[in-house]
Amino acid sequence: MAPFKTRRRVEFRDTDAAGIAHFSAFFFWMESAEHELLRAAGVPVVERGADGVDRSWPRVSASCDYTSAVRFGDELDIAVTVMLGRSSATYAFSFAQAGRSVASGRVVAVHCLMHPGRKPEPEPVPAAVVARLAAYRPQA
Amino acid sequence: MAPFKTRRRVEFRDTDAAGIAHFSAFFFWMESAEHELLRAAGVPVVERGADGVDRSWPRVSASCDYTSAVRFGDELDIAVTVMLGRSSATYAFSFAQAGRSVASGRVVAVHCLMHPGRKPEPEPVPAAVVARLAAYRPQA
Amino acid sequence: MAPFKTRRRVEFRDTDAAGIAHFSAFFFWMESAEHELLRAAGVPVVERGADGVDRSWPRVSASCDYTSAVRFGDELDIAVTVMLGRSSATYAFSFAQAGRSVASGRVVAVHCLMHPGRKPEPEPVPAAVVARLAAYRPQA
Amino acid sequence: MAPFKTRRRVEFRDTDAAGIAHFSAFFFWMESAEHELLRAAGVPVVERGADGVDRSWPRVSASCDYTSAVRFGDELDIAVTVMLGRSSATYAFSFAQAGRSVASGRVVAVHCLMHPGRKPEPEPVPAAVVARLAAYRPQA
Repeated sequence: MAPFKTRRRVEFRDTDAAGIAHFSAFFFWMESAEHELLRAAGVPVVERGADGVDRSWPRVSASCDYTSAVRFGDELDIAVTVMLGRSSATYAFSFAQAGRSVASGRVVAVHCLMHPGRKPEPEPVPAAVVARLAAYRPQA
Repeated sequence: MAPFKTRRRVEFRDTDAAGIAHFSAFFFWMESAEHELLRAAGVPVVERGADGVDRSWPRVSASCDYTSAVRFGDELDIAVTVMLGRSSATYAFSFAQAGRSVASGRVVAVHCLMHPGRKPEPEPVPAAVVARLAAYRPQA
Repeated sequence: MAPFKTRRRVEFRDTDAAGIAHFSAFFFWMESAEHELLRAAGVPVVERGADGVDRSWPRVSASCDYTSAVRFGDELDIAVTVMLGRSSATYAFSFAQAGRSVASGRVVAVHCLMHPGRKPEPEPVPAAVVARLAAYRPQA
Repeated sequence: MAPFKTRRRVEFRDTDAAGIAHFSAFFFWMESAEHELLRAAGVPVVERGADGVDRSWPRVSASCDYTSAVRFGDELDIAVTVMLGRSSATYAFSFAQAGRSVASGRVVAVHCLMHPGRKPEPEPVPAAVVARLAAYRPQA
């Protein structure tokens, strides 16, 4: 078991007039890294159930702590773990650039039935998904 | 008859590491100004027809020419005109800051039936919409 | 004393393919609301000191909890308080739409000397700034 | 000689409430593809001259025509050519998804001296840059 790892270059669109990556960019990178992890694990981001209703993972919480600025062109190493609750997934992200830690973040998403036009309805994470995501559990 | 006018402040999210507003921001501002014009004219951005099918305005073309940079905190005066074809709307935008022209843009949108899961199907602009947008025609 | 209040419409740029405002949009709205509060209080977002060095407020932490989705065109009521530490400012944001709470967020920024090409260097919040922001302190 | 080619996946951040990639996303992808081409050609996006002044490529014009919508998760094949004038570079982009053309765009950038706090000053494209970009000229 190990974190899922991916790499991402800071694009110009991600920068701001302070000359660094805007703090919001880390939330976009977390979301994309989460989707890459799901793709690698064979778990669809959106999946239609046998009942014709889509399942997805709306997020209920997102946070990021910033240690050091990153700049246009920098390559970021992103490590991701995911811990499952009954119907939730808590992702932890750590960002490093050239070996030094620059930020860490956390996102909590809930596995939900997405009835059109209604509030998302939480549903336990299916056993198949639990099995596929087990490889990316945080170390004890 | 006169252009529709609105005002917009450059936000920090709109800037880049060159210290100025990113060129993409003008496309967001054009879209928001278009939506404000439609709201002012009483034309919904998305409207469900009597047949249960939504009508909307997917865009087929967008362009912008840049004369002068703008910066965080600047207030932009935006003037918009719209010229209707059979099923299209061509919006022209001019951006000024403190009286000097900084950019001009153009967007072509097509009035379409939005059948779910199918390509948008062009439909003539309804007479009621033509009447409501007449006030914002470009001057001859 | 009362929170600073502002209002913001969900723009199309802020939405995603789930049909709702993307979770990242709340971070942009928090930043813009913070800047509006500073403008209202007469505190510059970036200020050049007598020593020729800029002072600004890099953020070290940002978080948001989401209760309910918001959609294109919705108007959001945003209330902001700010609590000052020796060199930090902690902003708390609450977002409501049509009277129901939809999200709450928190941003911690640090008052820093921005020497070009060096790491931001924390500096105590000047007394004049403390005085101007006192009106927006959270209620006990 | 051949166009520069790159590939890009539509991320969730790039989508909007119409369920497709927002039209603005193509401008971000054009910019990133331009920067990848420059990196591949060994041409810095920003370069400090012997006179201590930075050279960069502010853009004066950007446009995009849209043929077909793309969706979250789609992979886009992007082909880029660049044609040089005395001090300008005109990039042409074509976007395809699964073999069908979905959009084409054009960006004009001008090689400029970036004196701090002054308007960018156009400068002829250096011979070394002309030589490095020759491989990506459009076919006659």
